[in-house]
Amino acid sequence: MTRPTSRNAADTDPGPEQVRREDELVARVVESFAASPDPRLRLLMQALTRHLHAFIREVRLTEDELFAAIRFLTDAGHLTDDERQELILLSDVLGASMQTITVNNQAFGDATEATVLGPFHTESSPEIEPGGDVAGAASGMPCWVEGTVRDGQGLPVPHARIEVWEADDRGRYDVQYADDRVAGRAHLRTDASGGYRFWAVKPTPYPIPDDGPVGAMLRAVGRSPVRASHLHFLVTAPGYRRLVTHIFVEGDEQLVVGDSVFGVRDSLIKPFEDQAGGTPAPDGRDLGGRPWTRTRFDIVLAPEG
Amino acid sequence: MTRPTSRNAADTDPGPEQVRREDELVARVVESFAASPDPRLRLLMQALTRHLHAFIREVRLTEDELFAAIRFLTDAGHLTDDERQELILLSDVLGASMQTITVNNQAFGDATEATVLGPFHTESSPEIEPGGDVAGAASGMPCWVEGTVRDGQGLPVPHARIEVWEADDRGRYDVQYADDRVAGRAHLRTDASGGYRFWAVKPTPYPIPDDGPVGAMLRAVGRSPVRASHLHFLVTAPGYRRLVTHIFVEGDEQLVVGDSVFGVRDSLIKPFEDQAGGTPAPDGRDLGGRPWTRTRFDIVLAPEG
Repeated sequence: MTRPTSRNAADTDPGPEQVRREDELVARVVESFAASPDPRLRLLMQALTRHLHAFIREVRLTEDELFAAIRFLTDAGHLTDDERQELILLSDVLGASMQTITVNNQAFGDATEATVLGPFHTESSPEIEPGGDVAGAASGMPCWVEGTVRDGQGLPVPHARIEVWEADDRGRYDVQYADDRVAGRAHLRTDASGGYRFWAVKPTPYPIPDDGPVGAMLRAVGRSPVRASHLHFLVTAPGYRRLVTHIFVEGDEQLVVGDSVFGVRDSLIKPFEDQAGGTPAPDGRDLGGRPWTRTRFDIVLAPEG
Repeated sequence: MTRPTSRNAADTDPGPEQVRREDELVARVVESFAASPDPRLRLLMQALTRHLHAFIREVRLTEDELFAAIRFLTDAGHLTDDERQELILLSDVLGASMQTITVNNQAFGDATEATVLGPFHTESSPEIEPGGDVAGAASGMPCWVEGTVRDGQGLPVPHARIEVWEADDRGRYDVQYADDRVAGRAHLRTDASGGYRFWAVKPTPYPIPDDGPVGAMLRAVGRSPVRASHLHFLVTAPGYRRLVTHIFVEGDEQLVVGDSVFGVRDSLIKPFEDQAGGTPAPDGRDLGGRPWTRTRFDIVLAPEG
């Protein structure tokens, strides 16, 4: 790893005695974990120690800055309850959640890339038939989604389970409403040739909760709290790696500004072809003359393990 | 920085496409802070991002481990209130507090080394005369402490302010008792030749609060929550760097086990010469035939700035 210039580090050369003291402290903390009976925990704590101390030393962290960080974590902890998880949000806006997803979804040929699960996945969802409607009571422009699920050799994966969830056009998921509605979420199966199709609503951008310490941090650094428009997918089939991903809307301005949780992969940005009102629907559905849109998402699953 | 062997990293070579994806994500998060109007905040967040992602990638952090870390921070935040600061404790047991102290107290010739302030310092303390008693109602073996305060050239620093605080022989500071006692803390001034002397009690080891998540972590890795016996000093004089330090008791077994917050520096370990009951005190004080002890701590202040 290169040692980039930091304001304080550039100002003063610590000198050999100072470096010796800092090194010795790191060694002492690393050594303190040496007797951990759990080897994985030992590895994690020792690596955490090295990286944490490298950060403190590189930026020459002041005591005020350390206390500010501790206050930040304290405030984030205090805000967190069953409904709001500010520390997951922190992990998300630092890209830590996405990096964890990335290291656990090793690139495999042209297998579809994974992205963050997010906080709005639920344990259960209604099952729909092929061509059915995911949106239900969720408001928004009707959106026809179709594609295939295949393996790395291009062979269809029949009967794969596809779970889909999304916000409505007010930027809210069903679970964010006070009533018990279930909307904008469902699951379905691929057909014998690995194909699938359903109606949803066109995704729209929405902000992550930004009235807490994470939101204050984003404002302080001039970052947008908005997530790029997306539709969540969770795809499972026996023998294949579980795929948690989204598709994003090509042309969404937030893709230029930047997704607040870094969930975007270029391969997941899809063209959505908007259709004028009155354009016949692919399945002959009566859309009452409303405009609608359509997209295609062909999924490739990696093998398990 | 070397890339040590980690269990997962050793199992699989990520391969160039995987490395590209991980690198790209780090670059994207670093870039997100580029427009921060505060250059120091930009530097801090970009460095934090690089080190946090380097940790996740090196250990190939699992999603379960990320969630466990988030739960840990959540629990620590929930336990924290006006009386208990579990996140400072976490910083302490990871050596982050001590490393921050270290980088902010640049080695300067033979200037006395700094260590952690700890949570038991208070805004005010009684003033005592030279040779006075710091202990007050704090129980323990009487301990005569003497020394000098000098500058880097060996010249005495007269009228330097020395503040001292310590736990009693039950391992508790005055502020940890429910009554409003003030004991085991005081301040005094050096004399015209930079000398000082006072009575205190001999320091004894005590555990940091270990009934929370930090204590659970220490148990999981087989670490002791005990702090090596110590006496706190805060020394100030115009034109000199504020010195926050401790002295430790040579021969204390906890020095071998390890101080739970890594406050020990070899140069701060002092011999305490235990005296049999009836041995005359240096200032002629009547100790009622009790055994007592004595130590010496010669302090060297670094110049300010």
